[in-house]
Amino acid sequence: MINYPNGVKKNKKVQHPKTFDGNKNRGMVFEDKINTSNEIYRTKNVAIIYKKPTPIKVVKITNTGLKQGKITEAYYERPSTTDYNGIYRQKYIDFEAKETLNKTSFPMHNIHAHQIEHLSRIKAMGGISFLIVSFRAFNEVYILDAGVVEKYNHTTRRSIPYEVIKKEGILVPQGYVIRIDYLKAVDELYFKEK
Amino acid sequence: MINYPNGVKKNKKVQHPKTFDGNKNRGMVFEDKINTSNEIYRTKNVAIIYKKPTPIKVVKITNTGLKQGKITEAYYERPSTTDYNGIYRQKYIDFEAKETLNKTSFPMHNIHAHQIEHLSRIKAMGGISFLIVSFRAFNEVYILDAGVVEKYNHTTRRSIPYEVIKKEGILVPQGYVIRIDYLKAVDELYFKEK
Repeated sequence: MINYPNGVKKNKKVQHPKTFDGNKNRGMVFEDKINTSNEIYRTKNVAIIYKKPTPIKVVKITNTGLKQGKITEAYYERPSTTDYNGIYRQKYIDFEAKETLNKTSFPMHNIHAHQIEHLSRIKAMGGISFLIVSFRAFNEVYILDAGVVEKYNHTTRRSIPYEVIKKEGILVPQGYVIRIDYLKAVDELYFKEK
Repeated sequence: MINYPNGVKKNKKVQHPKTFDGNKNRGMVFEDKINTSNEIYRTKNVAIIYKKPTPIKVVKITNTGLKQGKITEAYYERPSTTDYNGIYRQKYIDFEAKETLNKTSFPMHNIHAHQIEHLSRIKAMGGISFLIVSFRAFNEVYILDAGVVEKYNHTTRRSIPYEVIKKEGILVPQGYVIRIDYLKAVDELYFKEK
């Protein structure tokens, strides 16, 4: 194994692009929990929600003699929308999942402006759209409606204070079967008294 | 350029996996038309519908000294759901797009059984789900509700006769601005007399 000048080893273990930013694999663990929760929701016929594949720009495919070629040059692309979408209680549902180690606020620098715009547009169209944010330090997960996210996107700091999320968001129950039972929070935020 | 035993050249031009099956690039042209139609729908605030990225299994990333690595080994994966989804008239919408050169029927061998099951489940959940099929020979495009697709999935031939599609489906208007104006057909099939 060769050490490159910047200390990164060649052919290192494959990491999700989101884990490149110093959050190690924490982001993946949170996403994995959401993914397994979605599997259970699908199995129980509660909702059909999937994570969208990460977009990858393929530059070169090398023939292998097999039916399908091997991709030998490709790059991660910036997603044009959000992580998850699907159908729940006959509604279109769309959300972005993020985790932070910060204890006082959720810094929005790790959401692209066009993703927030996407959430706002979904809301305006009559869909359910929100951010699901995990505060790692407190082991707390909240959903926060796109309207609140949009509001704080226009502040100079581009961060949402923890207290705002606690007050305006809905705490997501976490369990052993459904790890991140966010549809309970969705029920409370979007379907109460209906 | 080296000719390999099976006649395929190494490092050939990148093709979408769907074009590997002998349909040449016809499938892409049809998809491109849908994609540009969706762009216009989004711009006009009519609907927010995107093609999902093609899932790719990344095996190896090589460090380039840049922030993001280069993917040097990866393979196309079988999609778990359908090509397109989004929101239209407050409804969740989900569909698969296919083109055929066949003149008498649409052969379903190029749709996976789990994709048809996905369409059926979306329909059962109250979403709008259909197949959009292009008969290349006639330059005709139809949308066909998931219920009809499901029905013909259980026949031994696994194909839907052209006459059935013509009768049960809705012809999609094609134009110069909106190339495949399928939401007009969706209006007729799902929103008439409401």
